[in-house]
Order: sequence, then structure tokens, then C-alpha cells
Amino acid sequence: MNRLFLDRAEQNIPPLFSQTVTTEKTVEIVADEKAFLGYSAHALGSMPEVVKAGDRFVLDFGRHCVGKVSFEVRDNGRYLDAPVRLKLKFGEVPYEIARDYATYHGDLCSSWLTEDIINVDRIGTVELPRRYSFRYIEVTVLATPRPTRLSDFSVVCETSADTANWKSLPEGTDPELVEIDRVAAATLRDCMQSAYEDGPKRDRRLWSGDLYLQALTDQVLFDNAMLARRCLYLFAACEEEKEYLPGCLYQYPEVTFDKDMNISDYAMLYCVSLADYYFHTEDQKTAMELFPVVKRQMQISIDLMDKNGIIGMLENSWEGGFIDWAPNLKHNTAVQGVFLYALERLIPLAEALGESETAKAWREAQAKAMDGAKKYLYCEKCNAFINAYDGKQYSVQAQVWMILGGVIDGEKGKQMLKEALVSPDSIKPVTPYMHHYLVAAMVKLGMMEEALAHIKEYWGAMVKYGADTFWEVFVDHNPDVSPYNDPVMHSFCHAWSCSPSYFIRKYFV
Amino acid sequence: MNRLFLDRAEQNIPPLFSQTVTTEKTVEIVADEKAFLGYSAHALGSMPEVVKAGDRFVLDFGRHCVGKVSFEVRDNGRYLDAPVRLKLKFGEVPYEIARDYATYHGDLCSSWLTEDIINVDRIGTVELPRRYSFRYIEVTVLATPRPTRLSDFSVVCETSADTANWKSLPEGTDPELVEIDRVAAATLRDCMQSAYEDGPKRDRRLWSGDLYLQALTDQVLFDNAMLARRCLYLFAACEEEKEYLPGCLYQYPEVTFDKDMNISDYAMLYCVSLADYYFHTEDQKTAMELFPVVKRQMQISIDLMDKNGIIGMLENSWEGGFIDWAPNLKHNTAVQGVFLYALERLIPLAEALGESETAKAWREAQAKAMDGAKKYLYCEKCNAFINAYDGKQYSVQAQVWMILGGVIDGEKGKQMLKEALVSPDSIKPVTPYMHHYLVAAMVKLGMMEEALAHIKEYWGAMVKYGADTFWEVFVDHNPDVSPYNDPVMHSFCHAWSCSPSYFIRKYFV
Repeated sequence: MNRLFLDRAEQNIPPLFSQTVTTEKTVEIVADEKAFLGYSAHALGSMPEVVKAGDRFVLDFGRHCVGKVSFEVRDNGRYLDAPVRLKLKFGEVPYEIARDYATYHGDLCSSWLTEDIINVDRIGTVELPRRYSFRYIEVTVLATPRPTRLSDFSVVCETSADTANWKSLPEGTDPELVEIDRVAAATLRDCMQSAYEDGPKRDRRLWSGDLYLQALTDQVLFDNAMLARRCLYLFAACEEEKEYLPGCLYQYPEVTFDKDMNISDYAMLYCVSLADYYFHTEDQKTAMELFPVVKRQMQISIDLMDKNGIIGMLENSWEGGFIDWAPNLKHNTAVQGVFLYALERLIPLAEALGESETAKAWREAQAKAMDGAKKYLYCEKCNAFINAYDGKQYSVQAQVWMILGGVIDGEKGKQMLKEALVSPDSIKPVTPYMHHYLVAAMVKLGMMEEALAHIKEYWGAMVKYGADTFWEVFVDHNPDVSPYNDPVMHSFCHAWSCSPSYFIRKYFV
Repeated sequence: MNRLFLDRAEQNIPPLFSQTVTTEKTVEIVADEKAFLGYSAHALGSMPEVVKAGDRFVLDFGRHCVGKVSFEVRDNGRYLDAPVRLKLKFGEVPYEIARDYATYHGDLCSSWLTEDIINVDRIGTVELPRRYSFRYIEVTVLATPRPTRLSDFSVVCETSADTANWKSLPEGTDPELVEIDRVAAATLRDCMQSAYEDGPKRDRRLWSGDLYLQALTDQVLFDNAMLARRCLYLFAACEEEKEYLPGCLYQYPEVTFDKDMNISDYAMLYCVSLADYYFHTEDQKTAMELFPVVKRQMQISIDLMDKNGIIGMLENSWEGGFIDWAPNLKHNTAVQGVFLYALERLIPLAEALGESETAKAWREAQAKAMDGAKKYLYCEKCNAFINAYDGKQYSVQAQVWMILGGVIDGEKGKQMLKEALVSPDSIKPVTPYMHHYLVAAMVKLGMMEEALAHIKEYWGAMVKYGADTFWEVFVDHNPDVSPYNDPVMHSFCHAWSCSPSYFIRKYFV
């Protein structure tokens, strides 16, 4: 680990802003065909003042909250002469409350499903030590010796987003966009902690792919340059020789990362994050300090180019790239696009920092990779990127990244993209993360109407389903799509879904 | 609440002494016909270094412990990228570990059965916030994402007993008595916290009946006069006009008590505790300050005497007395004995404090109550206390208290007691608390051999069953006797069982 970079990261831990949210409101969670995961919440009145063993109610905090929860336990006139045992189940969406966690059958560890059994030995204020991510809390009284008063449920919501920086959209903005922007901002806010977390419910890690979209969107929302700087240093501290940066890292109890999680496209997008950061902040010191890392990272891909200019796969790197959670997706063509996309942004950075030799080398690499992509990844006959390297797989993802990489553009690019989106043969995006790049490709091709329509259709649909924050995975009419084999494991406040605010604020107001 | 007395109690919170106990030893809990509750623990070697979901082991701390538990959770080379969810089940005896708490069918609140599910979000030291009372911890790994290292289980045992004050018995003392004394001392030690608790597993309250035996025994073991003083003031603070003192009180979050728990015999024994305290410490200030409370308490019983000199039952007092947990036991005769027993000790206190008027009034009351007992509670024909007031119930308890009250003595008393103990018709003691008074009655009658034999037979049997501390309820060969309808609820380190040390050190060394 690079000690200097760790120190810099440490120096840039942002202050947290807190806001207390309290509630007495309860809801009933009811089966609802029209709800995305089959359940919705209906207002039910205030929580009971006095409870006994077996009682159960679901609190609704009215918004997505990330923070520590407290409440009061009191007797009802007679001393509680035994501990009060409560089960607290937390849900970001009604479905989690409705679902019996015991039926979980997914791949990730079940301990992420947030449920705690607590024993209150002494009446008074109960301050739960864990940080929770939720809108709803189901409270079940497992045991109490006598009628018991529960009250003052509250959560101290924490975020490193200074919401005072947030500006409302101009009057007259399309109300649909206002709503999408509001939910996107709430998503980013709740993922902004001492790092840009991917999701506060689960993982709670800093992922470089998420970082890229979070930092970009944060520039138009809360503008926490300190947090972006911290995250850039955190990844740089984890650099290992001739390895892509880890795709994710852990902050606690000390900064660390998994050896087998170096992801090529994420590493390249990390590099773009530094360019974005520099051009937004003009913080030359940070950019100069981290540029050598970026240079080495890009050199790994350059060194992996074969004679045709196609980027190969680094031994031990994670499945050749991430790109999207679409099942069986192949990554090579898209990764080639990411490489080109990154260089296009990094060459100006190199120039701005006086690294003209590097800029020159990158331009040569860009030309070679561009050539290779056109020659070996493109099928003229079908006007699509279906290539020898990836077998014959046809995906929206590959087209999008070839567009973003500048391999194709104009009418041909538009036609190619439109076809891929409607073709029954193509693999489609499943994550808001990939949908971001789809919109970005549309914007790049000048398809502004389509881009706006897609934002409204995709993120707008989540808003219509009642999302307080945007979800990790969303394929409309197909709630079963799950990278973890069980949607109850999904994070419903997921950083990589926050980017509509970026597009709306940059292009559509 | 009496503010002055509360302040005095506050000023006398004793310091706690702590001792850290660690273990790596595990045991297997096996069904064992010879064990009192059907299960015993067999040594099994060290705990596993690395665990995975589903693993389970039972730690043995080698002694009874009361305190806070901590342990280490570490990864096994790969970061634990999800919380580690553990179930920790605590047992004072093997039976509690073997028993599925879900099958509990007793009357007291199930929340006393000590089991916690914890989620470790961050590797490192886990410090559990609750105080536990146990020898064994069953650790079950409910969920963990990857192989996990658990280690350094330790408990910081706390007690207000200064074990440095404890003196070993003279060399050559009967080893059986040495063992009984050792277990009794451990029992008292673990019940001595910021008050004399009845049992650290369950209730954790200060009961005046337990206080009486604890303070008496403490005089010969650790001699914590400060703690005794605190407890005397705590009860005095809870005095209400023309009500017996509450039988028990709660210290936290503030001193309080239940309105319906004023117990006549306990209130009288509280008064005896003040006399014991005074004659042991010669602390005149405390005795003078609390004597008015004692005077008022005794006056309640005096006012309840009917024309025959028999103490009636105070409206709202708890079932006319406690005496013992023997099912269906009637209390009136025994309570009459407690009254006489108390006065016999309180008259010298009144005299020592210069309260001669009170001493005189008490002597008159004593004479009247003695007369009444002889005339109305005694059945000459059967040489037993079977009386009109209590129906025709025949109990060891009644005989014991009549002896302790001085109503009967000499050969007649011995014969009466021996008969009651063997008669198939008599109700027998079930608690070590009542067995204390049985031994005291034997001592009073000069039956020293029988007293010693009874200590060895009764408490010695618990030692032979492997008790680390003495139990709340014990009827040999009858493990089902339970005041709570389920023996798993019993406290297995119960203060009122600690008094063999008193007898051994006072009479048998």
C-alpha cells in the first residue's frame, strides 16, 4: 500500500452532515400486482403506544434513510422486570418487509439481509450501534414481561453530501424530470459517506465504476471535491505492479482490497475520473500526484494490445471486464470501447499537465486500437460489432461502447444502436449503470430526444413504481433478473443509478 | 422515595473488581442420566481456528462468570465482504446449552433465556454490550461470506466482592466442607454487584430475603459493609406509609419497585439485616438513621395482630408472605415465627441504640405473639404446628420457623422437626433459602451433627453434580420442581444459596 496516498486519503475524510428523521407512521405491506416486486405499502395510521409480546407493526420513515436508529422503551406504569426482546427488520422497499428472509436462496451471504434481534435490559433510550439503510422498519415484539411503551423511533441520517449546495431545477422544468432528478439526488446523497459507497444496504464499498458515475454526477449536485479526491487517493494507494487497480476496496478497519477483483474497464474509468476531477477542480497537485498511476494503468492495456490492436485480457483480472450484469455477457469489444473512451479524455489531461510524451504515446495507442476495432470487431454485413474475439455475441453493450469509444458515429452509429435496442437477438442492458452509457452514447450521437425519452422511460419507470432512490438492477416487467439469484438481495439505493441528474442538469434544462 | 436515603445509597455504590477469564476450551454437551438436569459437559479440545457458516462449538470458561464478553473476528486471508452473523447462547449449566430455548413453556418472560444474535459489520474486536452470567457459550455461525477466524473469547468478570478479603479454611478442614464453602463463596461473589443481586442470570434484583442471607454470609467471606449499607438504604428509600417494604427493588435506570410486591416475612428480615449490620460494623450513624424505618415496619405487623396474638395479613401484601417456593405452601404460621425471630434480634438493637421505649413495646408484642403461637398454632396431639389459621397444612417450613421464633425448643422441638422432615404428609423445603432456615433451626436446637449432615447432604449434592455456584431451586432426584414451570428458567447462581459458608465458618471449623 502506498503510504503517502493513504495519508492523503485520510486527510480528505469528508465531514458528515446529519439530519434526524422521526416517525410514528405505520404502513401495511400488501400484495400488489402493479408494484414492481409485487408489494406496496399502504398508510395505516400511528404506531401503537403500548405493545405486548407478539405485536408487530411496520414503521414508514417517508424517505430513504442511512444512519443510526434509536428509540425509547418504557414501561406502562409497571416496571419491565425482564428484558424486552424485539426483532427489527429493515427494508428499503416494501418487498423486503413482505419477504420472509428465511426463504432467501441467493448467492451472496445472507447476513446482508438486515434483521436484528435485540434485547433491551434497561428501559430508556436504545441506540442501535449499526448503520442501517432503509425506509421501513418492521418491529416485532418477541418477548416482553408486561405491556410496554415503544416510542420516538428516529434515525440520524448521515451523508457527506452537503445538501445546501444542491440547487433546484429551473422553474418550468418538465415535472417528470424534476422527479427523476430528485430521486437521483437522494440516491447519490445516501451513497455519499466517508467514500462514494456503491450501496449503503449492501457491499458499502468503493467501486471504481460506481465512483466514476458518482463523482461525475456529484459535480452537478453537491460538488464534494474532497470526497472525490479521497476516493481517487484510496484507489491509487492500492496499486500493485502490473495489475489493474482493484475494482473495489474496503475502508474499514483499514484500507484493503481483494486480490482477485481487478477489473479492466473499471480501472480505465478510474483514470477518466481523475481527468474529470482535474478539469472540474483544476487541482493540479492531486492530478500531478496521481497521474503516474493513471499512466501505469493505461500502459497495462496498451501492453495487452495484440498485433491487431485489440486489448487482451490480463491474467488474473476479473472475467476480462465488468461492463454490465447482463447474464453471459462477453466483455472484450466493450472493453476496447472503454479503452478508447478513456484515452479520448486522458490525452487532454496529459497535455494539461505537460505530459506531452505520454499524450503522444496515447494518441498512437488510440489510433491502433481504433483501427483494430474497426477492422476486427465490426461486422460490415450486419452493421454491428460482432467479432471473432467475442464469438458471435450481439449486445447493446458492445455497440454502446464502440460509439462511446468513437469507433462509429453519425447515421450509421444511430442505426446500429437503434437496431441493437429492438433486436430480439441482442443482449440488453440490465443495470442502471449500463443504461447510463446507453444514454451517453445517444447524447454523443446527437440523439437528444431519444436520450431524454430513455431517461424518462427507464429511470422514470422506477419513479412511477414509487422508488425513493434508484435501484441496483432494474428491468421493467422482469423483477426476477438478479445477478445474485434473488432480488431480495438487491440494493435499492445504488450509486450507479444516480446519473440521470448528470444528464438532466447538463443537457435537458 | 426518600431522597436522603437515595443519596446515601448512591454514596455507597461499591467499586467493582474485575478479572479477565479467557478460554479456547470446548466441550460437548451430552445426555447423562446421572447429571441433575440430564446433561453434562465433556472436554473436547480447543475451539476451531477457522469457521464457516453452519459451524458450532461450545466454549467452557471453567468457572461461573458474570461480566462483559469480547472476542476477535478476523478474516482468514480474504476480506470478509459481508457481516458475520453469530448466535451466542449462554449457559450457567450444561442443560441450558442442550435445551432448545424455543421449547420453553414456563411462566416468566422468555427473554431471560440468554441468547443473542449478533452481526459483526467490521472485523476486529467485538465487545458485547450486555452483561452475561454463564460458564458455557455456544457459538453458532449463522452466516459468514468466507472462512472466518474467531478467537480470544474473554469475559471481564465483575464483582463488588474483594476476594483478597477471603480467607481459606483452616488446614485439615473436611474436604467436603472446603468444596461446599468454595462454591458458596463463588455464588455470593457473582451475585455481589452494585447491590446484592438475587441472581445475575435472571431478575438481577435486590430482594430483602436474599439480602438478609447474603449480608450475613458476606460478613464471614468478603465483608463488604459498604454494599450492605447501600442495600439497607435502598430499601429504606422505598418505604411507603403503612406498607411493608417492597420485597425487591430495581436499581436501574433509577431506583424503583413494584407496588404489589411487599412481602411480610421479607420486610421483617430486612429489619434483622439492620441489626446484623449494626452488631457487625458498630456503624451507629446508619443504624440510627434507619431505625425509624425498622420501627415502622415492625409496627405494621404488631398492628396486624388479632386478639389472639396472631399476625394477620396486610391488604395488598404478597400472598401473606414468601417463606419458600414449595407449591401451595401456606404462610401464616411461618410468618408468625419470622416475627418472633425478628423481634428477638431487634430488641437488643433497640437497646443498643437507646430506644428503650421501643424495646419495651417489642417485648410486649413478642410475649403476646409467643402466647398466641403456642395456643392457636400448635396441635398438642400431633406435636406439630397445624393450626386453624392455615387450615390443616403440615409443613417443615412452619415447624422450622416456630423453632427459630423460640415457640418451641428442647427435645420436643427436635422430635417435631425430625418428624416433619421424614413424614410423607409434610410439605418439604424446595429452595436453598428455606434449607438455610432448616439448618439454622437445627443449630438453634443444638442438633449440630444433623445440621452438618444436612449441609453436606443438600449443598454437597449440588457440588457432586458439578455445580460451580449454588442453584436457585434444588430438590435432589426431582429436577422438575420449578416455581416457574420450567427449570431452564432457573438461576444457577443464586444468592440465597450461599449461606453454607456462614454455617461452616461460624460453627464447623
